[in-house]
Amino acid sequence: MTLSASLARLDVDDSIQLEQEGSILTLWLNRPESRNAMSLNMVNAIQQVFAHISDDASVRAVILRGKGGHFCAGGDIKDMAALRAEAANAGSLQPYVDFNRRFGAMIEYVDQAPQTVVVVLEGAILGGGFGLACVSDIAISRNDAQFGLPETGLGILPAQIAPFVVKRIGLTQARRLALLGLRFNGEAALTYGVVHQVAQDDAELEQQLAETIQLIKRAAPLASRATKALLHRTLNEPLTVLLDDAAQQFAQAVGGAEGQEGTMAFIQKRLPNWT
Amino acid sequence: MTLSASLARLDVDDSIQLEQEGSILTLWLNRPESRNAMSLNMVNAIQQVFAHISDDASVRAVILRGKGGHFCAGGDIKDMAALRAEAANAGSLQPYVDFNRRFGAMIEYVDQAPQTVVVVLEGAILGGGFGLACVSDIAISRNDAQFGLPETGLGILPAQIAPFVVKRIGLTQARRLALLGLRFNGEAALTYGVVHQVAQDDAELEQQLAETIQLIKRAAPLASRATKALLHRTLNEPLTVLLDDAAQQFAQAVGGAEGQEGTMAFIQKRLPNWT
Amino acid sequence: MTLSASLARLDVDDSIQLEQEGSILTLWLNRPESRNAMSLNMVNAIQQVFAHISDDASVRAVILRGKGGHFCAGGDIKDMAALRAEAANAGSLQPYVDFNRRFGAMIEYVDQAPQTVVVVLEGAILGGGFGLACVSDIAISRNDAQFGLPETGLGILPAQIAPFVVKRIGLTQARRLALLGLRFNGEAALTYGVVHQVAQDDAELEQQLAETIQLIKRAAPLASRATKALLHRTLNEPLTVLLDDAAQQFAQAVGGAEGQEGTMAFIQKRLPNWT
Repeated sequence: MTLSASLARLDVDDSIQLEQEGSILTLWLNRPESRNAMSLNMVNAIQQVFAHISDDASVRAVILRGKGGHFCAGGDIKDMAALRAEAANAGSLQPYVDFNRRFGAMIEYVDQAPQTVVVVLEGAILGGGFGLACVSDIAISRNDAQFGLPETGLGILPAQIAPFVVKRIGLTQARRLALLGLRFNGEAALTYGVVHQVAQDDAELEQQLAETIQLIKRAAPLASRATKALLHRTLNEPLTVLLDDAAQQFAQAVGGAEGQEGTMAFIQKRLPNWT
Repeated sequence: MTLSASLARLDVDDSIQLEQEGSILTLWLNRPESRNAMSLNMVNAIQQVFAHISDDASVRAVILRGKGGHFCAGGDIKDMAALRAEAANAGSLQPYVDFNRRFGAMIEYVDQAPQTVVVVLEGAILGGGFGLACVSDIAISRNDAQFGLPETGLGILPAQIAPFVVKRIGLTQARRLALLGLRFNGEAALTYGVVHQVAQDDAELEQQLAETIQLIKRAAPLASRATKALLHRTLNEPLTVLLDDAAQQFAQAVGGAEGQEGTMAFIQKRLPNWT
Repeated sequence: MTLSASLARLDVDDSIQLEQEGSILTLWLNRPESRNAMSLNMVNAIQQVFAHISDDASVRAVILRGKGGHFCAGGDIKDMAALRAEAANAGSLQPYVDFNRRFGAMIEYVDQAPQTVVVVLEGAILGGGFGLACVSDIAISRNDAQFGLPETGLGILPAQIAPFVVKRIGLTQARRLALLGLRFNGEAALTYGVVHQVAQDDAELEQQLAETIQLIKRAAPLASRATKALLHRTLNEPLTVLLDDAAQQFAQAVGGAEGQEGTMAFIQKRLPNWT
């Protein structure tokens, strides 16, 4: 529950809750009364936290999870009702456009976060919640969780999440799930490639999370950041440019403090000590 | 068997057969004597149908399947023999080029169809038939179906289908299947990502198809079209452009008739009524 | 053990060993004392062999495997120590850059090899060895093999292999495996899409390899080369350009010797005879 002084000063809405344990920050979605439906405030608060820690190498990982047994049931219906009034008053659809676009901006931000991002998936993982899960580095799910893209059944589109869903699971799976609005559980989510690990109950879920955190701590902080950025770049840049640049980064890592400690620890058959 | 007046007027070759039941159009490949091998006439007829219904929002889905227990065994050998004569007469390979390219044009057309496309896979799904299956939104297969890319074993190339196969199952699987010319069944096709569902017998196959059609009808027609187009675009367009545009589409959907009916039905806990 | 005169003249380092049986060339990684850790000499020798056979259509396939029960445990620690001295002397990181970049160049070369490339995976498949496995057309693994990307745990980056790993298994799996430094066996490698087939013991491994070689021989040599190149191009070129060009290649294949023999053999219900 202890936050670093810097994070404690951060003035975020109570739609989320923060906990810090050493280098691990847990960001709880905290609107249990509405299955953590994503309000505009929540969208903004999430992005604010990630922006705040972006250059803080002391935060190794962010655990994203939901209070009250659900991850996130999608967009918030009350916000949508308010928007409807606003749009009617303005005589324009722009309020919807702005609201929707903010969500995509946040997901993109989380996708590119330098930290290792872990999502813990329980209960509802629908619509926008599904999209958010799709940008995690490690996704651990309860088997009885409920996944789905219900948008087309509501007369709307999975607009801001479509690119992240296709990047996560490929067009082959995405087109069927979006067009049929199917609901599916953790085991199916594992098969489709949405999640990496499935737990049968709470104890197993927490154990898998604890093991994941251990593995994250064993990896070198700067090397992990550089590796994550490099993996993202492979999707967008020409191979030669990428390999040339990667060789430079490799050299800096080997010649730097982490590379020296890592090699030394390997030779001395001990765990490395990252500072 | 009843066709809309518009479809009934369509003058297509009997290499295919059309059936319509409300918003669902079934397109049967109808050359059972040659395991529905793809003739030039069949290629043209398929594209003609999809072109005809392209702007017809009353057709929600197209079911593609084969008469006589096979989906499609690939290109037609008799057409190839005719081409050989034609090429010899012309002293040019151009007849082969034109024939082959027509096939790719048709597959691309089906891939981009605004309707939800379901393929029902039985018997032979080889070569061009395999390629056609790869552009479906939902692929349901008999487990005892036989899939394969036999081209390299015939001294030729899976020329027009290569891009669609890689887009469907990725380079990792495609390179092995194409270079070894492997034959495999429905269960393996599910593992490789060619199909989404496997049925053990005819009854299960028809049941899965019926359930799929029910799910398609539950989704909003215009939202489904917009969603399918958006998913395709994620593979080719820059993220920012896409998200900006998707937000506009989202706003139009929410403010439009489907979005209003969908939200209302959700709040009233009833099924939406799409007109 | 018999090499063609041309290959026998090739002056390669004994970090690798060559064996030829007809059209099948086996390239053994041959540093069993260090689990076939990839030295700079080995990197150069592998690329030299692939360059030498590039235009030699008599070599249909290359089998890549390791002597002494391991495929390849990654980069060579001794080479790295030598580089450290060199870098210190030069007062520059350039020696690391050059060494690292050479490895990526070799992997890219193997990826684009016109031959069908089979990897036989046993023991350690780590780091650079993992990257090399990722560019095979067919990967057969012992179930008890040990795969992993240990770089971030050593304070360094999977720099040259990142693009090939993402291309092989997708970003979804790659980000987790690289950030957690997980070790996993053949069955898991099959699930993640690293390998295509898993064998429980040596006998099964050799049998799967023998069957794979049989299938390779059944495919037409030139058609196989053209198909492999075409599959690679689908990832980088616009669809229309690709389909236009593929139609030309199709016509040439159909009109050429392989296409004629392939069609004839099909009609006569016999195996084709590729020369």
